[in-house]
Amino acid sequence: MIDIGRSKRATTVYGFDDIAIVPTRRTRTPDDVNLAWTIDALTFDFPIMAAPMDSVMSPATAIAFGRMGGLGVLNLEGLWTRYDDPVPVLEDLARIDDPIKATKKMQAVYASPVRGDLVEARLHEIRDAGVPVAGSLSPQRAREFESIVSKAGVDFFVIRGTTVSAEHVSEQEEPVNLKKFIYDLDVPVIVGGCATYQAALHLMRTGAAGVLVGFGGGATEKTRNVLGVEVPMASAIADVAAARRDYLDESGGRYVHVIADGALGRSGDIAKAIACGADAAMVSTPLARAKEAPGKGWHWGPEAWHPTLPRGERARFEQVGTLAEVMFGPSVTPDGTMNLVGALKKSLATCGYTEVKEFQRVEVVVHN
Amino acid sequence: MIDIGRSKRATTVYGFDDIAIVPTRRTRTPDDVNLAWTIDALTFDFPIMAAPMDSVMSPATAIAFGRMGGLGVLNLEGLWTRYDDPVPVLEDLARIDDPIKATKKMQAVYASPVRGDLVEARLHEIRDAGVPVAGSLSPQRAREFESIVSKAGVDFFVIRGTTVSAEHVSEQEEPVNLKKFIYDLDVPVIVGGCATYQAALHLMRTGAAGVLVGFGGGATEKTRNVLGVEVPMASAIADVAAARRDYLDESGGRYVHVIADGALGRSGDIAKAIACGADAAMVSTPLARAKEAPGKGWHWGPEAWHPTLPRGERARFEQVGTLAEVMFGPSVTPDGTMNLVGALKKSLATCGYTEVKEFQRVEVVVHN
Amino acid sequence: MIDIGRSKRATTVYGFDDIAIVPTRRTRTPDDVNLAWTIDALTFDFPIMAAPMDSVMSPATAIAFGRMGGLGVLNLEGLWTRYDDPVPVLEDLARIDDPIKATKKMQAVYASPVRGDLVEARLHEIRDAGVPVAGSLSPQRAREFESIVSKAGVDFFVIRGTTVSAEHVSEQEEPVNLKKFIYDLDVPVIVGGCATYQAALHLMRTGAAGVLVGFGGGATEKTRNVLGVEVPMASAIADVAAARRDYLDESGGRYVHVIADGALGRSGDIAKAIACGADAAMVSTPLARAKEAPGKGWHWGPEAWHPTLPRGERARFEQVGTLAEVMFGPSVTPDGTMNLVGALKKSLATCGYTEVKEFQRVEVVVHN
Amino acid sequence: MIDIGRSKRATTVYGFDDIAIVPTRRTRTPDDVNLAWTIDALTFDFPIMAAPMDSVMSPATAIAFGRMGGLGVLNLEGLWTRYDDPVPVLEDLARIDDPIKATKKMQAVYASPVRGDLVEARLHEIRDAGVPVAGSLSPQRAREFESIVSKAGVDFFVIRGTTVSAEHVSEQEEPVNLKKFIYDLDVPVIVGGCATYQAALHLMRTGAAGVLVGFGGGATEKTRNVLGVEVPMASAIADVAAARRDYLDESGGRYVHVIADGALGRSGDIAKAIACGADAAMVSTPLARAKEAPGKGWHWGPEAWHPTLPRGERARFEQVGTLAEVMFGPSVTPDGTMNLVGALKKSLATCGYTEVKEFQRVEVVVHN
Repeated sequence: MIDIGRSKRATTVYGFDDIAIVPTRRTRTPDDVNLAWTIDALTFDFPIMAAPMDSVMSPATAIAFGRMGGLGVLNLEGLWTRYDDPVPVLEDLARIDDPIKATKKMQAVYASPVRGDLVEARLHEIRDAGVPVAGSLSPQRAREFESIVSKAGVDFFVIRGTTVSAEHVSEQEEPVNLKKFIYDLDVPVIVGGCATYQAALHLMRTGAAGVLVGFGGGATEKTRNVLGVEVPMASAIADVAAARRDYLDESGGRYVHVIADGALGRSGDIAKAIACGADAAMVSTPLARAKEAPGKGWHWGPEAWHPTLPRGERARFEQVGTLAEVMFGPSVTPDGTMNLVGALKKSLATCGYTEVKEFQRVEVVVHN
Repeated sequence: MIDIGRSKRATTVYGFDDIAIVPTRRTRTPDDVNLAWTIDALTFDFPIMAAPMDSVMSPATAIAFGRMGGLGVLNLEGLWTRYDDPVPVLEDLARIDDPIKATKKMQAVYASPVRGDLVEARLHEIRDAGVPVAGSLSPQRAREFESIVSKAGVDFFVIRGTTVSAEHVSEQEEPVNLKKFIYDLDVPVIVGGCATYQAALHLMRTGAAGVLVGFGGGATEKTRNVLGVEVPMASAIADVAAARRDYLDESGGRYVHVIADGALGRSGDIAKAIACGADAAMVSTPLARAKEAPGKGWHWGPEAWHPTLPRGERARFEQVGTLAEVMFGPSVTPDGTMNLVGALKKSLATCGYTEVKEFQRVEVVVHN
Repeated sequence: MIDIGRSKRATTVYGFDDIAIVPTRRTRTPDDVNLAWTIDALTFDFPIMAAPMDSVMSPATAIAFGRMGGLGVLNLEGLWTRYDDPVPVLEDLARIDDPIKATKKMQAVYASPVRGDLVEARLHEIRDAGVPVAGSLSPQRAREFESIVSKAGVDFFVIRGTTVSAEHVSEQEEPVNLKKFIYDLDVPVIVGGCATYQAALHLMRTGAAGVLVGFGGGATEKTRNVLGVEVPMASAIADVAAARRDYLDESGGRYVHVIADGALGRSGDIAKAIACGADAAMVSTPLARAKEAPGKGWHWGPEAWHPTLPRGERARFEQVGTLAEVMFGPSVTPDGTMNLVGALKKSLATCGYTEVKEFQRVEVVVHN
Repeated sequence: MIDIGRSKRATTVYGFDDIAIVPTRRTRTPDDVNLAWTIDALTFDFPIMAAPMDSVMSPATAIAFGRMGGLGVLNLEGLWTRYDDPVPVLEDLARIDDPIKATKKMQAVYASPVRGDLVEARLHEIRDAGVPVAGSLSPQRAREFESIVSKAGVDFFVIRGTTVSAEHVSEQEEPVNLKKFIYDLDVPVIVGGCATYQAALHLMRTGAAGVLVGFGGGATEKTRNVLGVEVPMASAIADVAAARRDYLDESGGRYVHVIADGALGRSGDIAKAIACGADAAMVSTPLARAKEAPGKGWHWGPEAWHPTLPRGERARFEQVGTLAEVMFGPSVTPDGTMNLVGALKKSLATCGYTEVKEFQRVEVVVHN
């Protein structure tokens, strides 16, 4: 704890850019590394989820991502559940360069209502492809669409907002009772974002299978500018991992997965997230660089189209290769934007590890 | 305390950019947040004052700001009390791009004397509109115009300089005895800037209703370059808030408002100011972005037109919307420059608070 | 140790840019400084090796560097052992500006196999010039070419990879047993990179004559982005120097040389490396600025042409003078890129030292 | 003390940009501030010396600076003692934009020998104008020209090099015995640069009237790049001020002046230098901005023309006004480059001080 001034104390916190991983005295061969990630009843080939953002996940890319061995999450309040055919909408958006015009256009196109029939249709489309199905809703609308989602059938139900707490209080409406909501559902729930030990511990007590750490995609800086709120990811993950350990004890053995969700622009960031204690990473920016990405070179999160207080904007990213190349290489961009899976294997191997769970113990340093 | 070298020690201090607010385990609905700010006999809808700077406050914008529920302060030594019609002067200034020419032009136009009749007329104009009236004078000239101001009638008398102390000493003139001056006035006085515990405590003992924390608007960096003087705002507010607490005890219950005055360019900064202990914020830069702003896209403070030692310069800011949009949205710029009131409500709600006074206790962190 | 968060601790580490050397109360004349460096049976005029990178070391520049009194190392897996005449290949590469195209081109030209006959021929060419001979292999291929290298005869055998450990473990192939490998060789081995006390201590125990500290040339930043792995050089050297001291005790007197290998772009960095405890520096970037450099104004390391996960890219550097001018001046670029030997002498002299070994004790400071 | 790594410790040091001055609870009127600086037998109107650099001090500007109440120092190894008429040389230099060409040109024009007759003539010229006379020599050549300087008569003899120690050791020539040299001279000696407590204490023991703190003008960054040597100024001054205090005790009352010499680009830096313990400041960059400056918009120090290892280069600075305006205003550039004397008065007054010696005690803070 340090003193900000005579009446205020604070802890010092760290982001991914502040830290680095240190190799041990042993090295391994990358091919020996096992990245398999098991959460609830399912096992994935690598601990990377694709984030529920319209610029990254369409039914088609969610299916493609699933076929590659990962878990893609579709935003059930995005354009795919508001429009029969959102492709022209996405194309219109992609043609706008001016950020203010883009914000206004997003506010306009997302004003179109979410349709239950489309929620159902999109989930069926993914289910029919034979890959794991996951859809996300905001805490505000989770109850509204829960029965449709349940009926359509999902493997994971994701509740994702800028900040989600287990104790939302409102004088004007009955808020979601997360604990009861999760208890009543048949499927495992992943919920977030959160960024502190206390908030995470309370989310774990709701019965969630996993908690998302972070305040959502690339909007971190904007959230700081608009709300003053930020918790850099390295510290946030290390705090939430402590909550996982304490809840494991308190619950007599329930292991809640810690999923990093934010500031994961490069493969090195994914490695750092695990080094800080994450079990998996929910990635968006690197996927926005794939040629198949619905954003067509643009990337945005749900904060970007808030009708009165947007807290993020579209960002432009160069398309560097196919989705398969982004995930498995070969890379031609030596900056951590391609071959995420190969890079993660190499990170573990360089440090002498073969299992993700062990790699959570790797030494990290803070660069002055 | 750290050692600068063998003969000098120092404390480490923090600005708004160094800190961030951390959500608690609870969240609230923004509509439940109550931003009302009561100081002396008046209650405002939100804890934001508009700064007495010619680029922001004219009689017209002070009236508009008051009608929105806030407190606008007119600079009684600015162009509006030096010229019958300052609009052509402002237009001339707006046409100059070169910073050196702009400084010379400002030195020239502000050389025109302040006229008592205009001081009276401007205050009457605001009073007649039925909104709270506040005018500011520098400590050097407070005595000269005090009787005119008192006669015209104000709700708040603001004494504002780069650094204002309760113990100004001069060998050449009898300085203002702030304590006596404030005692003799019928209206509450807000006085500053100050930036340390000791300076603030002495200002509180003069009987001020509020103290301004900071060294004036956007001129912080320039003051540092020219004078070497600076106290980053987060630490300054946290120190002055400690003075408020100690003076509350010492005075047997007099609560002096701590008003952040500087480095408040984004809504997130206003939230951070309160998180550090401020009761309210005196804002200028975001208001300079309003279409109604008299600066017409330019922004400057009184330091910028000092005849021999200017310590600030005009800065260019894009106009982003009407004054109402800047204050209440809808925002189309996701960077904290629009919907200040909505953003502040959202900050409190995200962290589980509904009252400004409680939000002073929210956890903050320092980013490495 | 500091807390990243509740479940993760870290040490703070420092790079060359974070530190500076402090003069003592004594000064010396640069001409009195003795930079001679003795390792194993050979003594060099200055403690600077030339790095085994194709952009810097050809047989011709290795010979020139040796004639100047230093030790040049040829990469035995580079273009000179893949092509009878690599000059046209280098010229083709130099004509490509686009980084992605350059990466693809490098991946293509380095796909050509390493030929044992060329390994032999290149070493003979250097040997025939009468200068010390040193060739480098990656740990992966050290065994494959060891007998050819031994037969051709080298003064130093360099094993260099991004991270080399004494305990490489593989389930799929029998890894090099470094200890046995080094024991069986007739020539002294220099091995690295490593960056921690433990890793270095284990490398020293293999019987190496010297260890390379760092993760390879200018690719540090890229390794961080791609793998998340980084140890800033000042701390890495100071840790490995502690391993040298402890191993000296443990081994009853075997002095293993600590050779800085990375982030040495300026002469001041070489001085800092020694100040942190290095015995010598393996330099690349300053040599890439020589007119004779085979890279023709471009510079890259072996990480840049990895077939699936490149972790570095070609960088452009202005050619500032001849190789002799880069090493001995006169300098016309006051930025540490010319007259490396003169600058190092001046550094020692300014601080009152005349021997490299003593200069390891010079005081350093950390700039806030 | 902090650990760089297991075998190296370091102190943390601070530059002017890291610190800021904090006002006290009292303010004063700038007109009450007394900046008079008495060193040895002379009293100057303000504690600012003009640095012996050809871009700043010619006989004419030294005279002008003296008439303004300050102390100008002429470099006795500069162009004015190498050429009968250096003006065409300066004009030629001013026409060169390319930095490498400029370095080569400086190496060429400074290769012309220093002439004793010109040393004498230049000093006479200043003497004849009726202002205090000060000339500087490097420690290497102090003995060579000492008798000429003594005969011509100076009020201050300045010995200035990148690093000057009281214990220079050379195997090849008999070095200057500073203590004897100073004892034999009739005039007070100011000597430096130095940057540490020990080095300064030893210089004080030679009998110097003042010590220069720093490594010379604007070349700090270049010295760091080339030699790895740097001590940020705030810490250096605070350490040397401790040596002044300890030497005062040890010597039974000899007060040696601490003169900041480096990184003083803005008036705020001069204030910070005093706040850290300096008695005076030797300024160059702000003076290079005067219309009368011989450098004609360019600025360089003696490090820039070293024949084999230049450690500085010419820098371009905009001319902002006459020398009188730079020193006394009115300022039209609100960045600390004009009205140095007015700004320093305002700094003291803002913090409630009227004497330079007292201002050494003002509180400073470190910005995170």
